[in-house]
Amino acid sequence: MKEAFQLHPQLAADCAEVGHLRLSRVLLMNDSSYPWLILVPERAGLREFYELDPMDRYRLSDEIVLASDVLRSLYNPDKLNVAALGNQVPQLHLHVIARRVTDAAWPGPVWGKVPAVPYGKKNLTRRLDELRGAFATP
Amino acid sequence: MKEAFQLHPQLAADCAEVGHLRLSRVLLMNDSSYPWLILVPERAGLREFYELDPMDRYRLSDEIVLASDVLRSLYNPDKLNVAALGNQVPQLHLHVIARRVTDAAWPGPVWGKVPAVPYGKKNLTRRLDELRGAFATP
Repeated sequence: MKEAFQLHPQLAADCAEVGHLRLSRVLLMNDSSYPWLILVPERAGLREFYELDPMDRYRLSDEIVLASDVLRSLYNPDKLNVAALGNQVPQLHLHVIARRVTDAAWPGPVWGKVPAVPYGKKNLTRRLDELRGAFATP
Repeated sequence: MKEAFQLHPQLAADCAEVGHLRLSRVLLMNDSSYPWLILVPERAGLREFYELDPMDRYRLSDEIVLASDVLRSLYNPDKLNVAALGNQVPQLHLHVIARRVTDAAWPGPVWGKVPAVPYGKKNLTRRLDELRGAFATP
């Protein structure tokens, strides 16, 4: 029997769910310092990018572009950062982060730079709503 | 007339050339702390992953897997890190880095963690030779 996909508890703890694409679950990192999406391909047991089937890799590549389009339409970033690291959370996940030259970590990468600043409940709800709206817009 | 691709001078300064794939120029970052490849799609004027044509994106995805296979066959890493950041060097380039749990930056990302430790001339030549050999092996 095929192992079922389950979101890693660390990702569930650090993020809020935006929704589902054809391959990936879309999460919002609960850090108001940056508009920061995470794509988690809903395939059980994957740790590395190369472990995806080629068709899933191509789909993930499309979903990275979709997430990029959403971030660009909402937040007009100066730069996008795209990364699959997974040194600390072993489940394969892709970061797609909207960067501004004025943000807390610029020009460095965001990881481990400054402590996360969680959204308040109201701001988190608002951000999730605007993201869901943008993903739903063709 | 189409603008010609030229490698960004900062990448040329920081890296040694391994060779060419169908889409990307393959570079070795001159930092002996990590086996660290950089793929630079040979398309002029690109800064972001989403700017690639879809077929180029799919090809880049294949070349990331090829670079991953090469690093795995030679260095048996504990983890691979794949990233397109470009906050400091604007030309689109993809990092594919072989990480070990004993390396200088683990479990953090490699960027800005510890100063680069350049290969000596002999070790650089040896590493380039072994990488070229591995890329040439089907």
